[in-house]
Amino acid sequence: MSLIDLSRQIAIGIDIGGTNTKFGLVNHRGEILAKGSIKTEDYKQVEDFIDALYSNIKPLIDETSVTRLDGIGVGAPNANYYTGTIELAPNLPWKGVVPFAEMMTKKFGVPCKMTNDANAAALGEMMFGAARGMKDFIMITLGTGVGSGIVASGSLIYGHDGFAGELGHTVVKPGGRKHWSTGSEGSLEAYASATGIAITAKKFRAEFPDSMLNQYREEDINSKTVHECAKAGDPTAIEVFRYTGQKLGEALANFVMFSSPEAILLFGGVIKAGDFLLKPTKLHMERNLLPIFRSKVKLVFSELDEADAAILGASALVWENK
Amino acid sequence: MSLIDLSRQIAIGIDIGGTNTKFGLVNHRGEILAKGSIKTEDYKQVEDFIDALYSNIKPLIDETSVTRLDGIGVGAPNANYYTGTIELAPNLPWKGVVPFAEMMTKKFGVPCKMTNDANAAALGEMMFGAARGMKDFIMITLGTGVGSGIVASGSLIYGHDGFAGELGHTVVKPGGRKHWSTGSEGSLEAYASATGIAITAKKFRAEFPDSMLNQYREEDINSKTVHECAKAGDPTAIEVFRYTGQKLGEALANFVMFSSPEAILLFGGVIKAGDFLLKPTKLHMERNLLPIFRSKVKLVFSELDEADAAILGASALVWENK
Repeated sequence: MSLIDLSRQIAIGIDIGGTNTKFGLVNHRGEILAKGSIKTEDYKQVEDFIDALYSNIKPLIDETSVTRLDGIGVGAPNANYYTGTIELAPNLPWKGVVPFAEMMTKKFGVPCKMTNDANAAALGEMMFGAARGMKDFIMITLGTGVGSGIVASGSLIYGHDGFAGELGHTVVKPGGRKHWSTGSEGSLEAYASATGIAITAKKFRAEFPDSMLNQYREEDINSKTVHECAKAGDPTAIEVFRYTGQKLGEALANFVMFSSPEAILLFGGVIKAGDFLLKPTKLHMERNLLPIFRSKVKLVFSELDEADAAILGASALVWENK
Repeated sequence: MSLIDLSRQIAIGIDIGGTNTKFGLVNHRGEILAKGSIKTEDYKQVEDFIDALYSNIKPLIDETSVTRLDGIGVGAPNANYYTGTIELAPNLPWKGVVPFAEMMTKKFGVPCKMTNDANAAALGEMMFGAARGMKDFIMITLGTGVGSGIVASGSLIYGHDGFAGELGHTVVKPGGRKHWSTGSEGSLEAYASATGIAITAKKFRAEFPDSMLNQYREEDINSKTVHECAKAGDPTAIEVFRYTGQKLGEALANFVMFSSPEAILLFGGVIKAGDFLLKPTKLHMERNLLPIFRSKVKLVFSELDEADAAILGASALVWENK
């Protein structure tokens, strides 16, 4: 074949989570040509983990008849963009500072770039999703935790040390709810993550014995079951999302006054709550903004399929203009 | 003279405040070769104001034997970097949206760039002051109000609409002190501005009849007199700064988790309180940071002479790499 098939020039996108690691071969159009996953927690040694990645990804490359492999992009908790290391990640089996990018480059023979998972998701949205064409936006990931990626003037903000964008740990209520892991009081994550929503729901259902939420066992209370009850019209469940949206909206107002984005993108399992969450969030964001910022900032849900977004976002690191 | 005298290639820096407008001729080294001021409030029509600027600045240019005038930089409240307009500035006599940069260019025959006063101060620090060589820092101006300029990867963050960096209006205590002008509750400005400190001092002295602060008339309570009392060892006055520092430190922690700066620069009249303010600010900033950010961020006072900083900062707009 004399013509170059651009759709076969690919980047490897890898999303490392505490439980699973997903990976895929992605082309310039954001198409995932092949994908797979391994269990992160099965590999106590990072060397074994990288060997497992290689032996799983190599066959995919061969099968897909890749014409050129441009590099590897990795999204991982506490990954440092500047140094290519994973540092003190509480949910990963490897302790200390792991020179992950360097080890990957040695194994695969191509450049490897890393950033944290929320930054990767923001890149994915900018290249392939709802933020296409935007130069200033903030991505908030609402999952088990709350992560963020901030894009200003078309570039991710990495900060002086590579760790910028930890908006989940900003305090929205000084002296408020204690965080189960960091110990901080009143952080956004303590309220707006799936974990935080479950805590709120358990508290509220104890106050309202008539609530449908009381039909569930303690361990089944989560943002999904709260959503079920809200859809069925349970006022307590609706109030859980209203309360969550208030905290989130107040936080978003502060973020807007920081970087004045065109849009805030919400992403992750929690957004399945839809308008139960979005409407109070928007209300309290607008209410807390200076007049100069009001009715300007789009508040939208991610367009990317959640299962693929992390892989796409990580692969986007390879082609990012830096 | 056949050699070009670089010290005579200048930019005009103009700092427009509600009461006074200061201007100066600045060279590449950050030397102010000549300066002056006019009273902003004397000019109800913006055309008359620009005429007055011209008739005051033109003689300075002639006297200083300028070899090249590169442009004009203006710092002004609610100035928009992208459009060169001043929009709905509550403290200025000109209402609506004023196409100020365009009018200045027409009058002076050179390009004119604008931004808000705190952004200008940040640029000044980056080119001539304590932030020389820094690519990531946040400037907080603590004066009558609280302003901010955020630099990431060596560039000011202007945001989608040119109004990024209104950190004084971020909420540090939801439902807290009502702002005298915006009506918002619990903003940083309501506590950490000179105005906010005076409010705190009046409240605290009413609770402690023994405080030295009670020796002053109501209208003489300000950050300067509170500082006098703190220096004399008055516990109530010291507590005023401790309380202010706590609110400021909590806010700074949130800002650090946003953009992970190398340093936060504090600037403006309020910083004369020195360690009375700086120590509690640092304590509460550190206390509210994730471990990954702790003991990393320098918290420093501006190095620029306050009277000149605004002019220097505005002039720096002309030579900014954008």
